[in-house]
Amino acid sequence: MRDEARRLDAADPLAAFRGRFVVAEEAGAYLDGNSLGRLPRAAAARARELVEREWGEGLIGSWNRGWLDLPARVGAGIAAVLGAAPDEVLVADSTSVNLFKLAVAALRRQAPRRRILTDDLNFPSDHHVLRSALAAVGGDPSADLEVVRSPDGVTVPPDLLLAAVTPETALVSVSHTAFKSAYTYPLAEVTAAARDRGALVLWDLSHSAGSVPTDLRAAGADLAVGCTYKYLCGGPGSPAFLYVRRELQEELENPVGGWFGAAEPFAFSLDYTPAPGLRRFLTGTPPVVSLALVECGVDLVREAGLPAIRAKSVAQTEYLIRGWEARLAPLGYALASPRESARRGSHVSLRHPEAGRITQALIAEHGVIPDFRAPDCVRLGVCPLYTRYEELARAQEALAEVVVSRAYEAYPEQTAGVT
Amino acid sequence: MRDEARRLDAADPLAAFRGRFVVAEEAGAYLDGNSLGRLPRAAAARARELVEREWGEGLIGSWNRGWLDLPARVGAGIAAVLGAAPDEVLVADSTSVNLFKLAVAALRRQAPRRRILTDDLNFPSDHHVLRSALAAVGGDPSADLEVVRSPDGVTVPPDLLLAAVTPETALVSVSHTAFKSAYTYPLAEVTAAARDRGALVLWDLSHSAGSVPTDLRAAGADLAVGCTYKYLCGGPGSPAFLYVRRELQEELENPVGGWFGAAEPFAFSLDYTPAPGLRRFLTGTPPVVSLALVECGVDLVREAGLPAIRAKSVAQTEYLIRGWEARLAPLGYALASPRESARRGSHVSLRHPEAGRITQALIAEHGVIPDFRAPDCVRLGVCPLYTRYEELARAQEALAEVVVSRAYEAYPEQTAGVT
Repeated sequence: MRDEARRLDAADPLAAFRGRFVVAEEAGAYLDGNSLGRLPRAAAARARELVEREWGEGLIGSWNRGWLDLPARVGAGIAAVLGAAPDEVLVADSTSVNLFKLAVAALRRQAPRRRILTDDLNFPSDHHVLRSALAAVGGDPSADLEVVRSPDGVTVPPDLLLAAVTPETALVSVSHTAFKSAYTYPLAEVTAAARDRGALVLWDLSHSAGSVPTDLRAAGADLAVGCTYKYLCGGPGSPAFLYVRRELQEELENPVGGWFGAAEPFAFSLDYTPAPGLRRFLTGTPPVVSLALVECGVDLVREAGLPAIRAKSVAQTEYLIRGWEARLAPLGYALASPRESARRGSHVSLRHPEAGRITQALIAEHGVIPDFRAPDCVRLGVCPLYTRYEELARAQEALAEVVVSRAYEAYPEQTAGVT
Repeated sequence: MRDEARRLDAADPLAAFRGRFVVAEEAGAYLDGNSLGRLPRAAAARARELVEREWGEGLIGSWNRGWLDLPARVGAGIAAVLGAAPDEVLVADSTSVNLFKLAVAALRRQAPRRRILTDDLNFPSDHHVLRSALAAVGGDPSADLEVVRSPDGVTVPPDLLLAAVTPETALVSVSHTAFKSAYTYPLAEVTAAARDRGALVLWDLSHSAGSVPTDLRAAGADLAVGCTYKYLCGGPGSPAFLYVRRELQEELENPVGGWFGAAEPFAFSLDYTPAPGLRRFLTGTPPVVSLALVECGVDLVREAGLPAIRAKSVAQTEYLIRGWEARLAPLGYALASPRESARRGSHVSLRHPEAGRITQALIAEHGVIPDFRAPDCVRLGVCPLYTRYEELARAQEALAEVVVSRAYEAYPEQTAGVT
């Protein structure tokens, strides 16, 4: 198994990218880049330059020497990753706050339609935010949020989702790639079908941006948000992006209007005139240090290119699934991700009744770091820019070992994971 | 003038704190700490540790080794500065987003009252956000926002503000210290009088936090927000704080509910149960790098103590006003800040019809950095942790020189400043 892994690593066209990241420990396996991407070496240098030179020496003048442009400039880089135009993406706030802004804006545009359709694979924070958005337009946060249930806990057939779009549906909002199962919707197909029924689609791209291609312009996608600290390697809690199709930008109003989204922030007018284009979706002053670092990870994704990233991602998740089939299924692990790679993102979820304790044992005894998603999932994320096949082999050996040896029994019951 | 300044610097009990900051250039004057505070040396070290060790090496595990606690921990430090209890302050999002959350939460609690009272000295972004908050509760963003006009463009007599509180007023929201004139409301008096009339007060402490004492608990203050990148020296765009009086916390609901404010974020339940206490006002994942650096500046403010900071701040703004009276008033500069120090924050505004071009000449020819606030204000901010009297003397000499020599005429007309 290790030999095959080493052969695959030796033939990996992206192998050199691993050296562009800080890798402190070579012996284990870091399979949680879908939760927090590794530190690009360039980001460590950029942080020093930004803090010590731009803040420490440049002081307030640095706003005019690049900081003011960061939300749009970093956004333009992400746009290239997402298949959007440069002026269709901004970086600002958290994914949840961005989702709130776009959901409220969309609901107001879509009146008198005012129901939101989502699914139960969507991230919990999205559910919370969508209810908040409904409340902000005078809707009923419970009754007006319709939740399509996944029949198998892993997938939602697009037809099932689309069948639930009614003339009252203002907005469909789902995760492109589901955080737990990695199930991935056909983005263009859902977008087109929803539009035919008069609904907008607001995608959460958190688990696909930087790993699954999304040709947003070709798909005519309306709205999207997503996080930058997973496959885009922006750093812990780095600010999120938002995408609005150019043709929609002037039709939408930021429901949390603030000075950075005003046409002339530094004219200090008490009246609010929204900036032309997408900048109107900024609100307050952005967290410059966290924001600037996002660019370093995005640059690496662009340099490698989504086709090569996606090819390796599919190959690595297939590798994990083959290994699961051969060695882990007999030990009680169930596959909780789609087998069809076209419908799968860049991680593989395995279900096991002892998933929580198994995860603890993997980390403590093997230096293998997946993550645990309550109640019973172990997620194995592959980030093609730095994940090696040998890490996947080690992880699978460890997943087998801790069950065979019952090593997990030494750990406390766990009901919740982290991030 | 320089001699007097040097004597005052030599006698300054806070003089040693300047060495705790990065000061690259000693020859000019940095009087814009009220816009962006200097870099604490500790923050430069903390940034390296956080990025290179905690992110680069600790990876996802760092969330459990301190990151998750940051919003509350940094908040508790700020609470000590503000005179609040440790569990009454959180750091999250931007000032504008926090203002939106607290304003909407307050409006919902105060129904059927639903008017907001503010003044025209308040920061423009606050006006924008308050209108957004009214829209989010079904109010009329124009008709339901009442704006008290300052009679002199510098102050708003508290009685004038309070006389406008009616039985329909849900919320009074003003800046404690006004961004342009530095006019400072008597916080306890306004809070008490508004409460007597059935209204809550939501203070924006951006220009007072860390420079003007605010004994929030003694005043029984209800709600506040504020920025951390001015006198708290948190770094460019560092996340903002929000304060909710303990007794109000469980009565208020976060109108942008997200996973970080849920009772158990890592249980990944689709149902939203708000966290007990103030944590419910978190929404998404916080920008860890920018957030963590805030602590370094706050620590310095706490170490020096607000009484000493305020004493030096008053002495330095008095020094500026004396100098203005003697040397700048005859040159056409008008004082646009209160003369009474009890009603003044930590900066002094001077009006001059050529303020924009004067500011350019000060920066380019004298290394003196104030800021320009359109249409006609030069702001001179003093940050007692690092501002020297000699800088103030230099600034006043330069303010005189560029007018006497008409040096400003070489610069282009300017209609807007920066940050």
